[in-house]
Amino acid sequence: MTTLNKENLSPAAFIGVRGKDIISFGSGEPDLPPPEEVYKILPHYTDFKYGVIQGLDYLRDALTRQYPDSTADSFVITNGASEALDLTLRVISNYEMSQPKKVLMTKPYYYSYPRLVEFADMESVYLKTNQGRIDMDDFREKVQDCRAVLINSPSNPTGRVEAIPSLKEIESLTSEYGVFVLSDEVYKDLIYIRENYLIQGPHVVTINSFSKTYAMCGFRVGYFWSLDKKLVQDVIAMKTHTSMNTNILGQEMAFEATKVPRKFIDDQLKIWQERRDLLYAGLKDAGLDLWNPEGAFYMLPKIDNAADFVWDMFTKYNVITYLGDWFGAEGRVRFSYALDTDKIEEGLERINDYLDGR
Amino acid sequence: MTTLNKENLSPAAFIGVRGKDIISFGSGEPDLPPPEEVYKILPHYTDFKYGVIQGLDYLRDALTRQYPDSTADSFVITNGASEALDLTLRVISNYEMSQPKKVLMTKPYYYSYPRLVEFADMESVYLKTNQGRIDMDDFREKVQDCRAVLINSPSNPTGRVEAIPSLKEIESLTSEYGVFVLSDEVYKDLIYIRENYLIQGPHVVTINSFSKTYAMCGFRVGYFWSLDKKLVQDVIAMKTHTSMNTNILGQEMAFEATKVPRKFIDDQLKIWQERRDLLYAGLKDAGLDLWNPEGAFYMLPKIDNAADFVWDMFTKYNVITYLGDWFGAEGRVRFSYALDTDKIEEGLERINDYLDGR
Repeated sequence: MTTLNKENLSPAAFIGVRGKDIISFGSGEPDLPPPEEVYKILPHYTDFKYGVIQGLDYLRDALTRQYPDSTADSFVITNGASEALDLTLRVISNYEMSQPKKVLMTKPYYYSYPRLVEFADMESVYLKTNQGRIDMDDFREKVQDCRAVLINSPSNPTGRVEAIPSLKEIESLTSEYGVFVLSDEVYKDLIYIRENYLIQGPHVVTINSFSKTYAMCGFRVGYFWSLDKKLVQDVIAMKTHTSMNTNILGQEMAFEATKVPRKFIDDQLKIWQERRDLLYAGLKDAGLDLWNPEGAFYMLPKIDNAADFVWDMFTKYNVITYLGDWFGAEGRVRFSYALDTDKIEEGLERINDYLDGR
Repeated sequence: MTTLNKENLSPAAFIGVRGKDIISFGSGEPDLPPPEEVYKILPHYTDFKYGVIQGLDYLRDALTRQYPDSTADSFVITNGASEALDLTLRVISNYEMSQPKKVLMTKPYYYSYPRLVEFADMESVYLKTNQGRIDMDDFREKVQDCRAVLINSPSNPTGRVEAIPSLKEIESLTSEYGVFVLSDEVYKDLIYIRENYLIQGPHVVTINSFSKTYAMCGFRVGYFWSLDKKLVQDVIAMKTHTSMNTNILGQEMAFEATKVPRKFIDDQLKIWQERRDLLYAGLKDAGLDLWNPEGAFYMLPKIDNAADFVWDMFTKYNVITYLGDWFGAEGRVRFSYALDTDKIEEGLERINDYLDGR
């Protein structure tokens, strides 16, 4: 393992960094366990053969309940949302289209987006944000010249949720211009202000996952959804060669998760809200400037000398935070609140100690 | 699910096609179950968080026993051998190198190779074969102009094993010219004529898997190995965004497999040999022209009007075979012998019925 230093810090470098006294506002993964139902099938599991590349049919069937007018054919089960995004971008990059190979996304962005766009031989075009949400004037100006738009609401790292009128305008403009919409909704079940709004349209792709809703990050079960039949087939055709079926046991566990009563999600949401309120109040009290978090489990306050803050908090105070620069947010630091309230309080104390001593 | 017809048949289309009376010489996956040890950990499994992208450290440690002079840092655990190949090709395609973006491979080839090369924006260059093995004169002529060479010994679909002098010459020529070697050794434990020969060299990548040796196809645990430290880091850096860690439970099961005594593999090999002998004799008796299978579990006989044979055997005789064209082998048909001897005998009877009636 590489030794961490101020220059090589990254979200990936922090994976596996654990310790009794470490308070981590870093990793974007739930700390509470998955529903116990997903483990109950393990003792009697005996399958081992290749699965259908598109994914288990009964898992895809179960998912149709969340997507009006769709059938099991609209889904592809993938190695997390990451693979769904990667495959979609690679397929779209190979299409003959009048638009140049450009992908529109907000800045700040989820840190993998620009890299995935680059890996797919395309170019990222960044949207301005207002208070962490899409600046629609900027969107109207830039969308025509792009092949796809990446939407992430609720957003990692801003914790903001796009306004429904904005989403509706995105639907109509992309439909008019023949631009693909890639809507990364992995935080769809973690919204504090309203129900999730599912973007509609003939060239809409929804990217989703069992990782956040059911705390199944390590099992890497995500999915792609679209009513664009050619795109679905092209994604399957590529996955056939690049990774074949998604782990069959992970898919079975995900299927069990689809049967878990909604109460599981509602109970989790209450816990997330309590943590959000605590951390938001604490960071405000510490004098930081930040947006009110509406979804997901992140806050992105402004912090002077952010790189020093992240390094010093880690090395001197055993507190992990992520540098805003990794997400295209200079002068800010990302806090995940996927940790219990005792630890949030202890973390806030250490942050106040540090900020007071600056 | 798409209805099968003569034009849309493919290995992927046959996945999941099962039935009591179907005899399948199709799928390239073991029919005998994995060692029972891999299931024993399931009842008490409770993890759920992201794993280190490179893979579980103790799994990588265990693998070093098979790779002299290497450490756990030389490995990346991937979603099957497929993802290891895909990532490696994508990374190499982005390198600044004097060689054009060409990848050398034999024809016949494993059917995913040309597609993966194309997905990575590179071009396939095909090597002639002699009796199913690399024509070294052709190799010497073509290797200098390529960025990478793909070796697959034992080979899917030929069942042939490269001669050690050929492999040594490949080592020295690629080392001299600075060409990457991607050695797909997923059948390394299924060789009937000698021990596996591990290709050595500073830019050698070995692609491997738990799928064939331990019958774990559906769990999709493969791995990349190389002593080229920059390449290892570049593959991890890409996987960080394209799929993150490989399913954590699949990795644990693979780790259990590494502890299984060698006897498991030896016993399996005896079964494979018995089946090979039976099918080889049967196809010879049916008057077919084919190479003596030396490894893996495939035979590739010449068959007149091969497309008719595959379609008629499937639709009229319930026997699945794969068209040679899918593997760049026109006028041939691929037979996998991953089925028990009773079924091989029954399958041979049906084949003889058909061929007699032609």
